[in-house]
Amino acid sequence: MGQASIGDMLNEKAREQMKSMSGTGKTISELKAGEKADGFYLVKSFEVKKTTNGKQYIDLELVDKTGEINAKIWEYSKETEEILAENPVVKVRGEVLEWSGTRQLKVNKLRGKNDDDDIKISELIPSAPIESSEMLAAVKSYGKKIKDSEIRLLVSNILIKYEKKLYYYPAAKKNHHSYMGGLLYHTLRMLQSGERLGQVYGFLKMDYIYAGVLLHDICKILEMDSDEYGVVSDYSMEGKLLGHIIQGIKEIEIEGEKIGLSREKSIILQHMVLSHHYEPEFGSPKKPMTPEAEILHFLDIIDARMFDFEHALEAIGPGQFTDKIWLLDNRNLYKPTDSNQ
Amino acid sequence: MGQASIGDMLNEKAREQMKSMSGTGKTISELKAGEKADGFYLVKSFEVKKTTNGKQYIDLELVDKTGEINAKIWEYSKETEEILAENPVVKVRGEVLEWSGTRQLKVNKLRGKNDDDDIKISELIPSAPIESSEMLAAVKSYGKKIKDSEIRLLVSNILIKYEKKLYYYPAAKKNHHSYMGGLLYHTLRMLQSGERLGQVYGFLKMDYIYAGVLLHDICKILEMDSDEYGVVSDYSMEGKLLGHIIQGIKEIEIEGEKIGLSREKSIILQHMVLSHHYEPEFGSPKKPMTPEAEILHFLDIIDARMFDFEHALEAIGPGQFTDKIWLLDNRNLYKPTDSNQ
Amino acid sequence: MGQASIGDMLNEKAREQMKSMSGTGKTISELKAGEKADGFYLVKSFEVKKTTNGKQYIDLELVDKTGEINAKIWEYSKETEEILAENPVVKVRGEVLEWSGTRQLKVNKLRGKNDDDDIKISELIPSAPIESSEMLAAVKSYGKKIKDSEIRLLVSNILIKYEKKLYYYPAAKKNHHSYMGGLLYHTLRMLQSGERLGQVYGFLKMDYIYAGVLLHDICKILEMDSDEYGVVSDYSMEGKLLGHIIQGIKEIEIEGEKIGLSREKSIILQHMVLSHHYEPEFGSPKKPMTPEAEILHFLDIIDARMFDFEHALEAIGPGQFTDKIWLLDNRNLYKPTDSNQ
Amino acid sequence: MGQASIGDMLNEKAREQMKSMSGTGKTISELKAGEKADGFYLVKSFEVKKTTNGKQYIDLELVDKTGEINAKIWEYSKETEEILAENPVVKVRGEVLEWSGTRQLKVNKLRGKNDDDDIKISELIPSAPIESSEMLAAVKSYGKKIKDSEIRLLVSNILIKYEKKLYYYPAAKKNHHSYMGGLLYHTLRMLQSGERLGQVYGFLKMDYIYAGVLLHDICKILEMDSDEYGVVSDYSMEGKLLGHIIQGIKEIEIEGEKIGLSREKSIILQHMVLSHHYEPEFGSPKKPMTPEAEILHFLDIIDARMFDFEHALEAIGPGQFTDKIWLLDNRNLYKPTDSNQ
Amino acid sequence: MGQASIGDMLNEKAREQMKSMSGTGKTISELKAGEKADGFYLVKSFEVKKTTNGKQYIDLELVDKTGEINAKIWEYSKETEEILAENPVVKVRGEVLEWSGTRQLKVNKLRGKNDDDDIKISELIPSAPIESSEMLAAVKSYGKKIKDSEIRLLVSNILIKYEKKLYYYPAAKKNHHSYMGGLLYHTLRMLQSGERLGQVYGFLKMDYIYAGVLLHDICKILEMDSDEYGVVSDYSMEGKLLGHIIQGIKEIEIEGEKIGLSREKSIILQHMVLSHHYEPEFGSPKKPMTPEAEILHFLDIIDARMFDFEHALEAIGPGQFTDKIWLLDNRNLYKPTDSNQ
Amino acid sequence: MGQASIGDMLNEKAREQMKSMSGTGKTISELKAGEKADGFYLVKSFEVKKTTNGKQYIDLELVDKTGEINAKIWEYSKETEEILAENPVVKVRGEVLEWSGTRQLKVNKLRGKNDDDDIKISELIPSAPIESSEMLAAVKSYGKKIKDSEIRLLVSNILIKYEKKLYYYPAAKKNHHSYMGGLLYHTLRMLQSGERLGQVYGFLKMDYIYAGVLLHDICKILEMDSDEYGVVSDYSMEGKLLGHIIQGIKEIEIEGEKIGLSREKSIILQHMVLSHHYEPEFGSPKKPMTPEAEILHFLDIIDARMFDFEHALEAIGPGQFTDKIWLLDNRNLYKPTDSNQ
Repeated sequence: MGQASIGDMLNEKAREQMKSMSGTGKTISELKAGEKADGFYLVKSFEVKKTTNGKQYIDLELVDKTGEINAKIWEYSKETEEILAENPVVKVRGEVLEWSGTRQLKVNKLRGKNDDDDIKISELIPSAPIESSEMLAAVKSYGKKIKDSEIRLLVSNILIKYEKKLYYYPAAKKNHHSYMGGLLYHTLRMLQSGERLGQVYGFLKMDYIYAGVLLHDICKILEMDSDEYGVVSDYSMEGKLLGHIIQGIKEIEIEGEKIGLSREKSIILQHMVLSHHYEPEFGSPKKPMTPEAEILHFLDIIDARMFDFEHALEAIGPGQFTDKIWLLDNRNLYKPTDSNQ
Repeated sequence: MGQASIGDMLNEKAREQMKSMSGTGKTISELKAGEKADGFYLVKSFEVKKTTNGKQYIDLELVDKTGEINAKIWEYSKETEEILAENPVVKVRGEVLEWSGTRQLKVNKLRGKNDDDDIKISELIPSAPIESSEMLAAVKSYGKKIKDSEIRLLVSNILIKYEKKLYYYPAAKKNHHSYMGGLLYHTLRMLQSGERLGQVYGFLKMDYIYAGVLLHDICKILEMDSDEYGVVSDYSMEGKLLGHIIQGIKEIEIEGEKIGLSREKSIILQHMVLSHHYEPEFGSPKKPMTPEAEILHFLDIIDARMFDFEHALEAIGPGQFTDKIWLLDNRNLYKPTDSNQ
Repeated sequence: MGQASIGDMLNEKAREQMKSMSGTGKTISELKAGEKADGFYLVKSFEVKKTTNGKQYIDLELVDKTGEINAKIWEYSKETEEILAENPVVKVRGEVLEWSGTRQLKVNKLRGKNDDDDIKISELIPSAPIESSEMLAAVKSYGKKIKDSEIRLLVSNILIKYEKKLYYYPAAKKNHHSYMGGLLYHTLRMLQSGERLGQVYGFLKMDYIYAGVLLHDICKILEMDSDEYGVVSDYSMEGKLLGHIIQGIKEIEIEGEKIGLSREKSIILQHMVLSHHYEPEFGSPKKPMTPEAEILHFLDIIDARMFDFEHALEAIGPGQFTDKIWLLDNRNLYKPTDSNQ
Repeated sequence: MGQASIGDMLNEKAREQMKSMSGTGKTISELKAGEKADGFYLVKSFEVKKTTNGKQYIDLELVDKTGEINAKIWEYSKETEEILAENPVVKVRGEVLEWSGTRQLKVNKLRGKNDDDDIKISELIPSAPIESSEMLAAVKSYGKKIKDSEIRLLVSNILIKYEKKLYYYPAAKKNHHSYMGGLLYHTLRMLQSGERLGQVYGFLKMDYIYAGVLLHDICKILEMDSDEYGVVSDYSMEGKLLGHIIQGIKEIEIEGEKIGLSREKSIILQHMVLSHHYEPEFGSPKKPMTPEAEILHFLDIIDARMFDFEHALEAIGPGQFTDKIWLLDNRNLYKPTDSNQ
Repeated sequence: MGQASIGDMLNEKAREQMKSMSGTGKTISELKAGEKADGFYLVKSFEVKKTTNGKQYIDLELVDKTGEINAKIWEYSKETEEILAENPVVKVRGEVLEWSGTRQLKVNKLRGKNDDDDIKISELIPSAPIESSEMLAAVKSYGKKIKDSEIRLLVSNILIKYEKKLYYYPAAKKNHHSYMGGLLYHTLRMLQSGERLGQVYGFLKMDYIYAGVLLHDICKILEMDSDEYGVVSDYSMEGKLLGHIIQGIKEIEIEGEKIGLSREKSIILQHMVLSHHYEPEFGSPKKPMTPEAEILHFLDIIDARMFDFEHALEAIGPGQFTDKIWLLDNRNLYKPTDSNQ
Repeated sequence: MGQASIGDMLNEKAREQMKSMSGTGKTISELKAGEKADGFYLVKSFEVKKTTNGKQYIDLELVDKTGEINAKIWEYSKETEEILAENPVVKVRGEVLEWSGTRQLKVNKLRGKNDDDDIKISELIPSAPIESSEMLAAVKSYGKKIKDSEIRLLVSNILIKYEKKLYYYPAAKKNHHSYMGGLLYHTLRMLQSGERLGQVYGFLKMDYIYAGVLLHDICKILEMDSDEYGVVSDYSMEGKLLGHIIQGIKEIEIEGEKIGLSREKSIILQHMVLSHHYEPEFGSPKKPMTPEAEILHFLDIIDARMFDFEHALEAIGPGQFTDKIWLLDNRNLYKPTDSNQ
């Protein structure tokens, strides 16, 4: 296989991150109750509020790659408010408190990041473990493997249309892959798994597998409003009333008509998008009726589950159970102790 | 209300039917085991088969307005086969047998309807109780009540596009309104009920009610293949893989774009079509989010249920229960005795 | 239609309300955090409590037509307690605070409403948008439309028996129509819709429709304990152990026997009450077996849903979505922008 | 325990049955394909029909304690028809055939039972394994154990009212206890179990346990139409539209009122009847809210299940599995081999 | 019946408890907001924490037979921490406060129980109402009633293996029988009920009933980690990944093999354990296929429910309803008023 | 990848089959109503029966790789019966009839296969498309890839124990992989897919993946009784009462103990077997709690579905839909037309 494995790509980027991170003081996951805080964080949102006795203060949410923390600036000033309004990233000093099990950052000092600070925004944003440009190239190369020229053109046109947003869109507002580049990362891993399952189940038509994966979630870009850091503020009006499955079907219908895609191929691809959630209560009124649509569903769910399992287990040590995870039907996951495996 | 009530229309047509029917000998529902049969029937389908000992015979299905019966022509001849191939309506003589509770017509004599026979095909076809032309006019007049010019144009364009097929399409392959003109009849009664509920719930936007009703099932015309007598042979390929709801959404998207319909109005109408089956397991991945979409669902289900109840009760006498009706969750319906009500 | 439409009735009363309301200072919905409060409110409940360090205070719930707010009187005095005990309506001055998103009224001054105050209790109570007397008359007039003399007498007797409570009973403890006169309002709108659907579906027996609607919820009067302002303190012992459906069936059985109602009619009406919630898990062990029972269910649910939709949308502007509404399966409702509709 | 155990009663009657049965030739369960038949059977129903070529024959259903068989009399005669019309029990000679796995009795000779025949109708009817008179006495003695005089009177009055029918009513149209005396047998075993569980759970109020058991199914007598042999032809009109649970509640309400039963006791008993099927989808809109209502449910279901298990296992040998039993969620029951247990 | 009834046993122990309890000052259930507290309590857990402004305090949970309360020691000292670490039971003085409906104990003084204090730990621990030694003897005596020598030996071996832990293990981490000796108490009552139902349903094989009850929950001892006061800290690793049903099956397989138990008997007993939760979603992938397995399920659920009902009703007066009980599907239980029952 | 791909193996064997098949006359799938039959078939079962008029005949089921057909030998003779009893394969001549849509083979002549016949039994038996010996070798080679020596030994021991039966066991009584070698084929394809997904999701512990796949269904060998041609006569007693999941867990427990496998590894593997059906209603009381258990489930279901899809689509032409497939929730599968893909 000429293409670098996802493991290889991943290691390189992760290694680089570890290095650069050290310059930012403490990451959010490192902040402990009772200790001092000092570091660069991304301002997710802030709001000016009043205490019970009428005093103004600022309530803000700070994030970095490692997590999120609520913070308070008890001494309000117009200047502070302006710093927050103008700087996506701020340098913060303060103390970490704990309030019935939840950490809170009491901010004592705060300034915007300036050019002398040796820190790039991209280093702070939670994002996929591979660079977007690298993922986008890999994803496009799968598009080129499609042998049917009509389907290949359709996929190519749609990728070009959404390329810019695909660069940073997350795959969800919260839950799995809800970070910058998440949609690309999700798509790429599904393509890699799909390619490999196609080696075992030789009767599968790979053109539909590749095209189905590439198009199945593309209209999440229309369903949600994300900023360029992968943070979704809300679903769009059309997203709420119709949803990305229906939007994706219309996309294929219309773009297919433009290039004279045969009706049959267009309908088969639309059916794959329609059925990929599998169960009516998850948004698919039809179940897969082709083997490629069936596999598409499993590629999708396997990638989502592997994401959830991997992240849940990162937080605990060997021989331990996680807390109940709501997303996984309240399971407590177990991390085996490492022996010689 | 200037428009004639559905009651008035109905009576006139029904009366006329009763009259013309008398010329056709026995209707299918009148055929009794052990008696002679003599009448005009529509040939739904026929097939040449062989008996266990290799003799050829013809197996055929006959229908009229009142029902359906399986028939056998035990003496095969090439001429008989040709008569069946060339004549949609035949005159049949024979005997009615019963075979473990099911009637069967043993055909003794058969000929095609000729011009001297005082019988029109339309009199034999199961169909809505109002003339299609009258229903189409009524339905169109509701389209004209839409005040918003964009929505009115959209609806008008789509009605014109499908007008010819709307004339005879049934509303389903089997079950409720599965006869010639059934789709029109279903639409008309929903419009009449919608108009009236709008008088009680004054805050409803009638433009969306009328447009929603007129468009909600229109793509059943694309979902099913019906002949001009309202008999559906099968679902179309696109119908099976996507379904009339998805097809209807695409129709509005594309026809709306053509006339510059505002995005908001287009999405709201698409949402109405998407949500009108209400439950995911019945094909609606989203529940209604506007009052007009909510009402559309109830107009639809009330009309289907009233159809089922009315027809089930026609078959029994006062003070009796029907058999279990599968379509209605195996209920046994009850027909009250008539007192002075 | 000789009878005034519900739209007409509604407008008149609403207009009058707007006028009188202006005399009461700020309504509860108008109270904003950080501002002063000054107005007449209904005392829903109050309790003397102690703070952590042993000081007495009064915790109270105030309501008016527009909403509800929690209030605190931090300086306890015996006199204040007595004012609250003796006056259903009080004039309050204070400040509005906000506590993690919830408003709270800090009461500084408080007195009972006296005769000089130009405010009537009825103006403060959340209630149906039409006068109870007017609704009661309209509802009774539907009772008189019943042609069957036995059924008409049964309905008349039961209405007379519960007339006084029907005047003010809500239709629920919370949720839809849970205000003074709510039961009457719910019944009236169902009668109006039922009458209209009867015009479309001519085979429906209107006597059963009218009687069914009039009796379906009447035993909510026995199921819940409501004061004369339509506030339900609790369900009754019989209400909890049996519920209004079972109570309503017994009512018809017993009142029917008294007047010699035919067994068949009595059972049919009991069946309508029994089946009107449709699904076993909502309290109906039998599904409707007559078309009139079927329609009764739809009249009921349409009116409840229209109530929920109308009120949810009142709180937002055009082009906006509501928050998730638990009662409506967590839907976010959408309010279309007004164009020329 | 002074009262004879159900085991004792049962053995006596069973032993007697075995003896008397020997006089009737072959029982229905003993009839085998390819062999002669000769015995007394009960005529459940018969009908005169015509073969395909127009010949008359008689189609009849014969039963005895051990089972049921379809029979044909191919040579029709008026006399034979009259014998069947006039004699509940007939003596039959013929041959047993098998038709795709189903046995059929070809009748060659047939006459009515006459006084010389040493066979009693009661010996042929499928019935409970204890004499009805004995069961009725036992059941009544439990009624007398009720200490509360009001409840005791209520139960006594209702038992007297239905005593005659209770003597022969089955507990169901088909399935468990669907034979003569089945309702009594079901009631008796529940009383015996209830008495014993009351010894373990001392806080239970036995008055409610006894009264609840005695009344819970009593209105099956109104729900179904049974002949005096325990064969149910159909459900009654009221049974279909309301059901025995609702009918039982009304019974308690009305009979309670007659004797001045306190409202609380009446409601508690009605609640027990209402909740005894436990799940809404099985007919109980409320779940048990008292421990006695909770136990009533378990007494009911245990008795039904033990009936099903006992009868299913009777038909197979040790170490074998039954076929799938639809009533028991398609379970294959297993009968352990007897060792020294 | 030679064996003392459970009622007799219970009264004796309860009476003794009432007496001894009086020496401990106020029980936890007697503590009221605004009053002083003075008594002996068991220290369930404690933790040193910091207030928002950095001061240390101790947060602790105190329990006795009657309930549980959160307490705070605002003045931290190393000595106090040591007292808590070394003494399972402490004498506490303080004040009871209430915080949004929840009681909290502000501790002013605290010392360890010393030998002069006239109080035994066992008097403070929530436990079954019968002494463990008495229950163990009774449970074993049922084991001896098993007639099949192989099964009797199997049961005896397993009881001996787990005897020590059985002495104090609860039947659950929380919910029914979650106190010291709960598992024994649950088992004993099931044995008593099983014995009695065997008198009514004479075909039941009592050996399997007794063995099934004795073994059905025995591996809760392996599933949960309980201290000797019956307090479960957590589930074991094997308990979480497999559960006590699977563990119990393996126990029977392995212990059965050791003593040469016949395969059939072993499998039947394993099947009883496997199926006793009845529904797949409650942990039983197979439904009972023998009558003894069927009854085992009902014995289990009846005992759990009676536990829940009895305890819920203890807390309220006659004629009252409990709050909604989550464990019982949010039912409000009703306690009938005592009349002469 | 050194190992030959499954595609390569498959083609070779399939090609060989096609060749050898031609020698057997017509395969069962080629038999058409009205035509002659002449070929070698496997005798699945036969029974001597009697016609209505008492004549003996033989009813038999014949199978080959391509399907199954019911046959009748109307002229009974002792010799014919003996031929059937002694020969697994017979040569048959006769005529194919059709009976209400079902084919039936009327046998005219029949003899046992003798040594001169150029046909091997293995050529007639429905079986996996790869030779068992080849599959077994491939499966074992995966066992050797396990790095943990304890787990490798466990898997090796269990494979050796069941090797002989694994050679021919099907994976199910009916449905997917229900043919000779089906269990091996299912296992092999899962191993191949598991290996490939491990390349994409690098954090997965491959030892558990390989061991989990190899052991997950191994106790189907104990659950079902199969002959050496892969035909399952029935489930075993233990299989019915416990099932292969429970049996597999006990297998790992016991075999693990024998070799001193660490408790943790044993429990993790048992958990994988326990959870691999994923949903309680499909037999898994616990959901996967490790990523390897999660993947195991998907490997299993993907292989089952691909089997079903592939076989369903083989029967139809491009551009066609299959009939409703019960196993796949009544879906109609669609086979795309081949273009240049």
